[in-house]
Order: sequence, then structure tokens, then C-alpha cells
Amino acid sequence: MTTTAAQGRPGSRLRLKTPASIDIFTRILTHGPIGRIDVGRQTGLSQAAVTKAVAPLVAEGFIQVAGELPAGLSPGRPVYPLTVVPDALLVLGIKVNVDEVIGVATGMTADIRHTVHLPLADTALESVLDAVEEVAGRLTAALGDDVDRLVGIGVSVSGDVDTDGGVVRDSPLLGWSGVPLARLLTERLGRPVMIDNDVRALTIAEHWFGVGVDSRSFAIVTIGRGIGCGLFLNGDVVAGSHGVAGEIGHLPLASMDAVCVCGRHGCVEAVASSSAILRAVRAASGNDALEFADAAELARAGDRAAVAAFDRAGTAIGAALAVVANLTGPDTVLVAGEGMRDFELYESRIRDVFTAHAFGAAVDCTIITREHTFDDWARGAAASVIRATVRQTFPT
Amino acid sequence: MTTTAAQGRPGSRLRLKTPASIDIFTRILTHGPIGRIDVGRQTGLSQAAVTKAVAPLVAEGFIQVAGELPAGLSPGRPVYPLTVVPDALLVLGIKVNVDEVIGVATGMTADIRHTVHLPLADTALESVLDAVEEVAGRLTAALGDDVDRLVGIGVSVSGDVDTDGGVVRDSPLLGWSGVPLARLLTERLGRPVMIDNDVRALTIAEHWFGVGVDSRSFAIVTIGRGIGCGLFLNGDVVAGSHGVAGEIGHLPLASMDAVCVCGRHGCVEAVASSSAILRAVRAASGNDALEFADAAELARAGDRAAVAAFDRAGTAIGAALAVVANLTGPDTVLVAGEGMRDFELYESRIRDVFTAHAFGAAVDCTIITREHTFDDWARGAAASVIRATVRQTFPT
Ligand SMILES: [Zn+2]
Ligand SMILES: [Zn+2]
Repeated sequence: MTTTAAQGRPGSRLRLKTPASIDIFTRILTHGPIGRIDVGRQTGLSQAAVTKAVAPLVAEGFIQVAGELPAGLSPGRPVYPLTVVPDALLVLGIKVNVDEVIGVATGMTADIRHTVHLPLADTALESVLDAVEEVAGRLTAALGDDVDRLVGIGVSVSGDVDTDGGVVRDSPLLGWSGVPLARLLTERLGRPVMIDNDVRALTIAEHWFGVGVDSRSFAIVTIGRGIGCGLFLNGDVVAGSHGVAGEIGHLPLASMDAVCVCGRHGCVEAVASSSAILRAVRAASGNDALEFADAAELARAGDRAAVAAFDRAGTAIGAALAVVANLTGPDTVLVAGEGMRDFELYESRIRDVFTAHAFGAAVDCTIITREHTFDDWARGAAASVIRATVRQTFPT
Repeated sequence: MTTTAAQGRPGSRLRLKTPASIDIFTRILTHGPIGRIDVGRQTGLSQAAVTKAVAPLVAEGFIQVAGELPAGLSPGRPVYPLTVVPDALLVLGIKVNVDEVIGVATGMTADIRHTVHLPLADTALESVLDAVEEVAGRLTAALGDDVDRLVGIGVSVSGDVDTDGGVVRDSPLLGWSGVPLARLLTERLGRPVMIDNDVRALTIAEHWFGVGVDSRSFAIVTIGRGIGCGLFLNGDVVAGSHGVAGEIGHLPLASMDAVCVCGRHGCVEAVASSSAILRAVRAASGNDALEFADAAELARAGDRAAVAAFDRAGTAIGAALAVVANLTGPDTVLVAGEGMRDFELYESRIRDVFTAHAFGAAVDCTIITREHTFDDWARGAAASVIRATVRQTFPT
């Protein structure tokens, strides 16, 4: 199978004029290599419609036709499977953390080509704009001549993000509210920028290119500095009518004594975020110089207060998983995020509390875990742009 | 506009052979009277496809063509709006409560024609089968000759219901588990029976024939004997991969001291169901003869323990509403159920707690309330059959 991107006009726009052609392209992107017959079967469209939609995309270099599938996979007549040309278009995905900005450059299949990590001194808006500009600059430099095919840039942050309006309405972790981030960055970077909630973006990446590809419904729960949840139900990511969904970090499942970074009482994050755990261990030890790794070390060594802090976190996270299962009924929940590095410290508590509160068959929901990589988050922001590009909603 | 059911062959089956014809029929059913052009526009299908799908349905008497729309509604050329013939097919919907079985006979638009209420002495399986048979018998008798057009019977119960398998897997309120209710009732009644979770059925009714018709996403929260939630997200009712979804009555949002009828600790129902409220007021007053109406009267009169019991219930329900909003982001939540009769006793607490825990723009979620009618529940079971009939999944 040879890449045929050279056929295409670099930088040409991906034009998909009908819902059917968007469905067909999406199916090839997420399930390729795939034969025309399967594309038709899986999208419910006729062979004629598939052929009509695919032809111009092959001519423009967005889709390539490979040789026959290996014998075992193609009984009967030969199959010429279709794939999307990964580097026909390129995107940048950038995730803003409280202490770091992470960026990746990917092709159409969210395949990471370059990565940049840049420490962030503070989350003041100017500092973040500077850092994102720096990261985007290094990534575009790394792309070299390929920058011609750069579609645009996705930036994800935690909190209540209005993607359509381009505004970060409320991000407690960053300390932002009402920030028109998409416009500010589009002006700075001179390229189209779309913004998204970080967990929603991660869910898009998993839906198109990860665990969710063949799942009817799934959830991603991220643990660490923030506690988030992305939901995929009834064939799409749950975006929230008002832009808010999946905010399990702010469900009132903890003690009402616990005050959250968002100002509310009893939020899951108020006891289960890594900073809440650290705060509790620092308070118990009287040592304000402790870092999170020290708190984890104390818990591993059996320090009572540290063990209690992780237990409290695990109890809240386990209850949150039960809420997700009882309320939305996914078949799989993927637990991820930087908190996975110390997952053994709360795993049994999380699973016990989940089992105690899962209602009926909700207990059959599969909970899988994945080691954390920081780049996953940035890849999510890239996937968000890829999806918008395919759906013809990305601003150009 | 005259009804043209007489054209149809009574009892003829509704055959919709393609996804497109199902979409077209659904659109006419839920949005009629509607012109062919609007059907095409709203379904994304061509005029040719609409015309092709509609023609046989008109001939068979399932769809009728009315005269022109009134002048104000049809600028330009005349519009001959389409509606589904309500009595082309009939269904029964039956809801099993712990103390009553309620049945309705409806047409295709879930329009109630007959209603039967029958007290239930206990929830033993035989008692319930007898009562459902009695209710179904009275309704079919009321239909008279129209019984020829009866498609089948929907029965809804609370709990974890496997609709596809026809099994009530777990219903704490009825005290059932693993009951193959669909098969037992099909044998008893000699007609096809499908079963569904009661709140899911109510959500289907609201989606096709109620508040959800033009809503992108909504939730129904029912309060009373049980606390339930139906979710409509991304274009469909959330059914749950394992058959469980919307179980807000069993979210761990109350004190862990409170034991639920399901055996778990801290469930919303453990403090907020009408029986939990009554139990608390009885315990405080030492009067085990009190009924729920007495408890409500005490709260109205300012009795401290009774006020506290309703406050505790309102706190749990308000937190549950915030969970629904923060996690799934509906634009509207409809609060309904028999608990609405005393809603003023917890409304302000519910709204205050909701507002305290709604995250960011989730607070913009509109909470509307509706007076309770018992027949709504049975109508939900009927709507569940209507939808399955249209989708060609109803067992015949
Ligand atoms: Zn919070
Ligand atoms: Zn319970």
C-alpha cells in the first residue's frame, strides 16, 4: 500500500457536500482499510452513492485505494480497500494544563508526528496566549513545507467551554471566565483556531480513533488534577445543550464540608483531585513542602492520613463511576488521566464503591484503565479539529 | 380534514421497508399535519423519496392527505398536509404500580380513547398477571369491533427491564427479579406484549408526542413512590447498554445511613421517595397509622419533623437534578410524577440545591414541572409499542 498524497493538491480543502459523503468519508477514516461494499453496508448507503462520493476524493488525494486485501480477508472477488491519506491534511492539537502547554501535530488519522511540551509559569491569560503561540510556532516549524496542508489548530482546556461561540465560559482550574479564546488565538496565530473542553475532545479522539470505534456507548473518566468525564451515547459525543456535560468533578458526591476549587461544596474534585489529596496530606503532616509524589509515597508506606486521603478520593471517584453507569448506562468506562500513575493507591476502593452503588445490570459496565500519556490530551484537541473538518464545520 | 381510516384494511400491518420510509412516517406521525416539502427538508430526503414512501401508506389508510393548509400557513402554492390516521392501528398501554394497574387504549398518536384503573392487593407475580389480564380484557371490550386493529400491548414497570429479552431483571419496588414478564403475558393475553422500564416509556411518549418533540435533548425526572429519570440525548432515548439508564433514584446522593428499598446505602430514594418521607414522619411522630397525605398536612402546618423530612427529600432531589444537568446537559428537565401533588413542600429546596450544585452554564437548564396524571404512565407504555411498531421491531 503506497501513500498517494502526492496526487493531491497540497492544502486543498476537503469538500464533502452531502450528509452521505460525510458519512462515507468518516467511515473510511475511522474503519479503513475498508472495502466499498462494507462502507455501503455500514453506512446504509447504496454502492452507487459510495462510488460517487469516493471518486472525487481519490482524485483530490484524500482517499487512496490499496491493492487487494490479503487472501484470508477477501474470499471471492478481489477487494480494493480504501483508506484516508493520513497526511492529506494536517492539524495541530494543543492542551492547556495549569503548569504546562502540550502540543502535537497530527495527520487526518490523529497520528502524532511532532510533540512539544512547554512549562507554564502561571495561568494568566497573557501567559497562556504566549505559551500557545510558542508551542504552535515550534510545531509549524517542525512541519516544514508540509505546513501548506495545515488546516488549523485545536486548543482544549478544562471547564465550561462554548465551542460554537469560541468562549471559555468558566474554567475554575485556569481561573478564567468569559474568555473569547478562539478569537484571541486566531488573531495571534493567524490561523483558524477552535476550542473545546479537554475531556470532550479526548472523547472525540477515542470515538474516532480509539476504544470507542466499535462501541455503542462509552464513557471516559479522567482522574488527576481535575476529574472529568466524556460521554458517547446514541451515536455521538454528549456536548450538553448549554455546552456543559460530563462534569463529574463537580457532582455533589463528597462531604458538604469539602470546598471545591469552583467554590461549590461537596464536589468530587474537592476530595479527589490530586491537589485535594495533597492538601489533605499536607494538613495532616503539617508539612506544606510535600509534593504529590511524596503524598503517594506516604500512602504506599501505610501512613494513616495519606491512606485516608486516597481512600476518600477513591470513594468519591467510585461513586462518580456508579453515577455514570446508573444514569447513562455505557457498556465501557475507560479510566485515564495523570492520576493513573498512582492508580493502585485507590483502585480497590474505587472498584468496591462502584460495585456497591451500581444498580442492577449497571454493574456489568466494564471498567478499563489506561496508562496516562500527556500527549493523549493534545491529540484530543487535534481530533476535535479533524472531526469539525470532516463535518464541514471547521472555520476556514 | 376527514378521517380516512375506512379506506384501510382494518388490522393490516404497517410495513415500512427502508430506514428512509421509517423516518418519513415518524416525521409525519410526530409533526403532522406537515407538507411533503417539509417532510423532505426535515428528514434530509428527496421529494421523490417522500412521494414514493407516502403513496402506499395513503393507499393502505395509514396516512391521510388533508385539504389545503389555512391561507396564513401556506404562502404561495397550496400545501396538502399529511397526517397519520390516528385509528389506523390501536395499542394498549398498561402501567403496573405497587398498588394499582392502569391501562389505556390509544391510537397511533398516543391519543387516549379508554382508561381503566384497577387496585392491586399485592405485587406477587400471579396477582399482577391477573390484574393486567383484567385491565387488558376491559380495554379490549371497550374497543368493540375496533379490536381488529389492535397491534399489541405495552406493559411498563419500574426497575431494570430488558425490553429486548422481555425480562424484568430487577424491580425493587415490585420485589421482582428475573421475571420473564413479556412471555408470561403474551401467553396469558394471546396477543403480543412488549415490556419496558416505566420512565423510559414515558420518555418515548414525550419525545414523540410531548415536550420533547422539538427539543434536542431533555430529561424527565419523576418523583413519588419511586424517583426515576428518562434521558433523551443525541436524537434518541438513552436505553443503557445493559438495559439500565436514568436510575437517579439509586444514585448515592443521600446520607450513607439511609438504607434504600434496593438494599443499597445512600440512594436518593432512601430519603426522597414518598415512602421514605412517610417512614421518617411516622418515626418522628411515633404514629404508624399516618398516611402520606397526613405527613404532607403536618409539613404544611409547620411540624418540624415533617418539614425536615420534605427538606431532606428536596435536598436529594435537587442534587439529583444537578447531577443530570452537570453530567448530561439537557436543555430542559421536566419534573413529573405523583409527587407533584405536594410539590410546593419541596420545590424551593429542590431549586435551591439544584442552583447550588449546577456547574457553569448547566444552571441555564430549564426545569419545568407538570401536574401529575396517572394515565401519563400508561400512555408511555402505549408510546413504547407505537415506536416499536413504526420501527418494525414490535413482535407480531
Ligand atoms: Zn466543584
Ligand atoms: Zn436504591
